[in-house]
Amino acid sequence: MNKIKVSLGERSYEIIITDDNYAHLGKEIKNLNLGKDALIITNRRIKKFLGKTISSVVKRENISLHMETVPDSERSKSLEVWANLLERVVKFDRGRELFLIALGGGVVGDLTGFLASVYKRGIPYIQIPTTLLAQVDSAIGGKTAIDLPCGKNLLGTFYQPRLVYSEISALKSLPFSELRNGLAEVIKYGAIKNRELFGYLEKKEFKDYDWEYLVFECSKIKAEVVEKDEYDKKKIRMILNFGHTIGHGIETASEYSRKYSHGEAISLGMLCAVDIGNALGITPSGVWERLEAILTKLSLPRRIKSLRSEEIISAIGYDKKFRGEKTRMVLLKEIGEGIIVENIPWELINRVIRKRMG
Amino acid sequence: MNKIKVSLGERSYEIIITDDNYAHLGKEIKNLNLGKDALIITNRRIKKFLGKTISSVVKRENISLHMETVPDSERSKSLEVWANLLERVVKFDRGRELFLIALGGGVVGDLTGFLASVYKRGIPYIQIPTTLLAQVDSAIGGKTAIDLPCGKNLLGTFYQPRLVYSEISALKSLPFSELRNGLAEVIKYGAIKNRELFGYLEKKEFKDYDWEYLVFECSKIKAEVVEKDEYDKKKIRMILNFGHTIGHGIETASEYSRKYSHGEAISLGMLCAVDIGNALGITPSGVWERLEAILTKLSLPRRIKSLRSEEIISAIGYDKKFRGEKTRMVLLKEIGEGIIVENIPWELINRVIRKRMG
Repeated sequence: MNKIKVSLGERSYEIIITDDNYAHLGKEIKNLNLGKDALIITNRRIKKFLGKTISSVVKRENISLHMETVPDSERSKSLEVWANLLERVVKFDRGRELFLIALGGGVVGDLTGFLASVYKRGIPYIQIPTTLLAQVDSAIGGKTAIDLPCGKNLLGTFYQPRLVYSEISALKSLPFSELRNGLAEVIKYGAIKNRELFGYLEKKEFKDYDWEYLVFECSKIKAEVVEKDEYDKKKIRMILNFGHTIGHGIETASEYSRKYSHGEAISLGMLCAVDIGNALGITPSGVWERLEAILTKLSLPRRIKSLRSEEIISAIGYDKKFRGEKTRMVLLKEIGEGIIVENIPWELINRVIRKRMG
Repeated sequence: MNKIKVSLGERSYEIIITDDNYAHLGKEIKNLNLGKDALIITNRRIKKFLGKTISSVVKRENISLHMETVPDSERSKSLEVWANLLERVVKFDRGRELFLIALGGGVVGDLTGFLASVYKRGIPYIQIPTTLLAQVDSAIGGKTAIDLPCGKNLLGTFYQPRLVYSEISALKSLPFSELRNGLAEVIKYGAIKNRELFGYLEKKEFKDYDWEYLVFECSKIKAEVVEKDEYDKKKIRMILNFGHTIGHGIETASEYSRKYSHGEAISLGMLCAVDIGNALGITPSGVWERLEAILTKLSLPRRIKSLRSEEIISAIGYDKKFRGEKTRMVLLKEIGEGIIVENIPWELINRVIRKRMG
């Protein structure tokens, strides 16, 4: 069992990384003394797969437990699903210090965190991420959100969980496509903050990955960044957006065709960001080839297909404008060192995306 | 112009109390540098009455301004009205650093504050309270909320405004019943924290009130209490609940008959709390008579009519149980000194309420 502390004063908490089928979960929850009633929010697939295990370890600690499910889809992050879930939370609330448990991937985590943050002006919640993407990224750092029809994550709060419990064995049931989704984020962490991690991904084959090592290293980076910029206001947390500016554009442009998953889109976004870094003389030569080699090994995409560049550009522009952001991007000074660069020319972004088409 | 600073680290802000028809408002907003687009949320009555004045002082500072209204009723604090308002906020948002202005009483303030706290994980908002109740209480301290069918203020956040601008001239258009509503809270502040203020209310007649003095003294107390216990977790902020435990029970029990306003209900709640303090030997004799004399002068109720004591008791119990609270109450050690007392016997609460019936 590995522990990482996220130091945020009164809002500090631990990330626990284990590979023993949730054996420590009950005790860890009990020690936090969050309340007498726990409500797990999950989806049907995970309930089937993990419901019994989690229930038995929690109930052993004399905490009453109830489980509610939401559909397993990004569309669950809507105001409608959220309001419906809220009704069920109210129904279960017996006024005996209720706390929530998000058991699942990013959708369940974001939805549960947002609910916990506004119900009775904030009740405790813990994160039990079951996907690689959630374990290395979304479950850590307290960004909660739901989507509005006109944009993703437009409603949300900064509200830290009281514990993040990442169980490595949960990853073993995931399909390769889902693991790849998370691995794109792992590559990102290596690229911006950890040369050794990047080197590990270059050397090792997928079948030999030490998943506990990957989750631990990424969680440590995320924790450190969040500690320095909890509210994403100091241009520090933004470093985690490497590959995400153009990546989000690609994701949005492919929203209906569902051509690219989040991991695939940010893989393409990272390649574009290296292209831009090269053009601006910030990223040295050789980086591009090393990044491309890892993506190739993991069958992550290197070329943008079946999308129009205008759609991607307009999605980036709309997003930036709507969020009141400048054309700031994260570029690489070298492998393991990301930097934030402002006022990237639109013309350059445009050219790099076009080059990557087809 | 009087200023009170609410010191909360990065979340600090000023309460400005003026009586010059919003003459300083534009400059004060400008100095905060909150953004280029302001969206005022108000109700139709206030829009008619103050819309032009506010618009002209804000627009003079080169801030674009738009106004949206919500119905003037406690029922506006619903998820439905809130979601509808959210749609209108999104529509107006041009991504140029939007901020909100709550112009009105507690309903508008709570609704606007909650929206500001969760839109894009928090955008700035300011409070321009136009009722006495909002000026002395709800606009200060960052408690935002909306109601759910099963209970008041069940959704909400702690989210501080960037400015509270209390304009005394706004009070002049209020009917006596609305002023009395706020005066009950003023009496409360005197009773728990300020002997001089209580004495002032005893000596002066309504027509001679210096409203600027009243708003200033109450705002100062509220600011000091909030500074010490921003998140209502240290049993300090709770002192502001004097008269509110039984008061809320009376309010809830009279929800359909609308027999008692908030101010009326807490007047009755304060009398009951003094009764309980007497019975427990905490409140000295004489306090009850002094409190009753002020209430009489202001035509605030001293007896509970047209309600059944069982309804009140059950409303208190349900509220407590639902919120996971003990039967804690604020009692008076003397005029100007409230204290929190735990485990008040239900039997005593019951007896005191019955004594006050009819």
